[in-house]
Amino acid sequence: MTEQETAEQELTDKVVASFDSAKDERFREVMRALVRYAHAFVRETRLTHDEWTAAIEFLTAAGHLTTDTRQEFVLLSDVLGISMLTVAVNEPGLHESTESTVLGPFFVRDSPAIELGGNIAGGATGEPAWVEGRVTDTGGDPAPGARVEVWEADDDGMYDVQYDDGQLAGRAHLFTDAEGRYRFWGLTPTPYPIPDDGPVGRLLDHAGRSPMRAPHLHFMVTAPGFRRLVTHIFVADDPWLDADSVFGVKESLVRPFDRHEAGTPTPDGRRPEGPWTSTTFDIVLAKE
Amino acid sequence: MTEQETAEQELTDKVVASFDSAKDERFREVMRALVRYAHAFVRETRLTHDEWTAAIEFLTAAGHLTTDTRQEFVLLSDVLGISMLTVAVNEPGLHESTESTVLGPFFVRDSPAIELGGNIAGGATGEPAWVEGRVTDTGGDPAPGARVEVWEADDDGMYDVQYDDGQLAGRAHLFTDAEGRYRFWGLTPTPYPIPDDGPVGRLLDHAGRSPMRAPHLHFMVTAPGFRRLVTHIFVADDPWLDADSVFGVKESLVRPFDRHEAGTPTPDGRRPEGPWTSTTFDIVLAKE
Repeated sequence: MTEQETAEQELTDKVVASFDSAKDERFREVMRALVRYAHAFVRETRLTHDEWTAAIEFLTAAGHLTTDTRQEFVLLSDVLGISMLTVAVNEPGLHESTESTVLGPFFVRDSPAIELGGNIAGGATGEPAWVEGRVTDTGGDPAPGARVEVWEADDDGMYDVQYDDGQLAGRAHLFTDAEGRYRFWGLTPTPYPIPDDGPVGRLLDHAGRSPMRAPHLHFMVTAPGFRRLVTHIFVADDPWLDADSVFGVKESLVRPFDRHEAGTPTPDGRRPEGPWTSTTFDIVLAKE
Repeated sequence: MTEQETAEQELTDKVVASFDSAKDERFREVMRALVRYAHAFVRETRLTHDEWTAAIEFLTAAGHLTTDTRQEFVLLSDVLGISMLTVAVNEPGLHESTESTVLGPFFVRDSPAIELGGNIAGGATGEPAWVEGRVTDTGGDPAPGARVEVWEADDDGMYDVQYDDGQLAGRAHLFTDAEGRYRFWGLTPTPYPIPDDGPVGRLLDHAGRSPMRAPHLHFMVTAPGFRRLVTHIFVADDPWLDADSVFGVKESLVRPFDRHEAGTPTPDGRRPEGPWTSTTFDIVLAKE
């Protein structure tokens, strides 16, 4: 070790040791690791003062842009694959249950309740999509009364929280029936860019990366005794599947959305005036 | 490698590769390293969803607290030793020049100009301290006309930017004379806590760490043809020297502040009514 390397290592050791008297063991462990990896990054890159200043300015701009309805730090975590990695390290490690993906920044706690077969659009525009499936445990037994929470962007690529009027749209929750079945009308997902008018958008631009997300519909499924499942379904054959800006796509979550001409009868016995799609998504929950 | 490890590594590789088409080579290198180390941190700690959420909330709170006069992200970098490490990796690696330390969050661009022997207090209260020295190159030749920028907290531990009235105080700049000499009246530095009423303060509290900084006076010295020097001098024999909350202390920057009784004549021929201190700080600049 050169004298310079020794001095740098001594500083790292000193900062790591500064967390020695933290009472919470997990906090101590996480902070020590954070210091070690953050320092390793600075040392390897020989980070310049100007780059350090740019990082401070980036975080400041992200903080100032963040509100109840715009979360730039979540976007940052998403585009750096940190969100998906956090999902990955927390997967139950069982292949029998449905895979997870990112929560994203657009989840809202108080969505409207709808009946089985109801419509989540609530004014959001787009092509109707019939979505149905069954929620079961890993043994195939139904999970009746499971809460199925769904949300998605409209055909302009906007979530309701991005609207000016504050209305809830394109989101709802419903409960599975005695056989674990659910069904609802949503919208056929379309590709859209993550909000890219802030520092994260500039980062992507600098990287030559697209802000587009592969078209998807969000699910959060909860039932007593089971691990909460946060996931999406993705539309099969979409060109953005291979270039999702937040690395959220998993093969097992890609679903064909079958196209139906105007007038084709729907599963709930209607004949829509326009075209519509349909898909099936059976969900397997892991035990808590 | 287990299947889980393989999946995690594949995700990391994918995110690293997403920066492949960045045009700026340095940006590409820094971002790839950032992704590698951030992912290594998440994987080693098996970061939980709740911890991820806590991190997002921490950054959001830090962003909302940050203004033109309160920089919570700089404080975070400081208490994690990242600021001092950035200083270290950018040191010229020459032991002949004066060592650097952190800039801190209280530097202001437009400080008042004072004459040689002038007073930087501008209303800030505290015990007067006479500070003098010589600015030279590494060969001992004087650096005339070097800009010496100094700033410090008052005896309540407050910098002017923390005052409510917006006045500039406890900061000034002056220029060295033909022999590279400078001299001014400042205040004897006292220990003070970094602002600890925000998320960084809560982090320190959780860690069982003190927010106190070892007493110091900030210097920024610039002269054409020389590297900019950002440093402090620290007061010798202070108990906080070994527990500075931002890891800023270097032995070579510790200076005795000699105490003088009321009435003792000063170097500029006055007899103050109260006690005062004096110190010397010769500064050696590295060539650009």
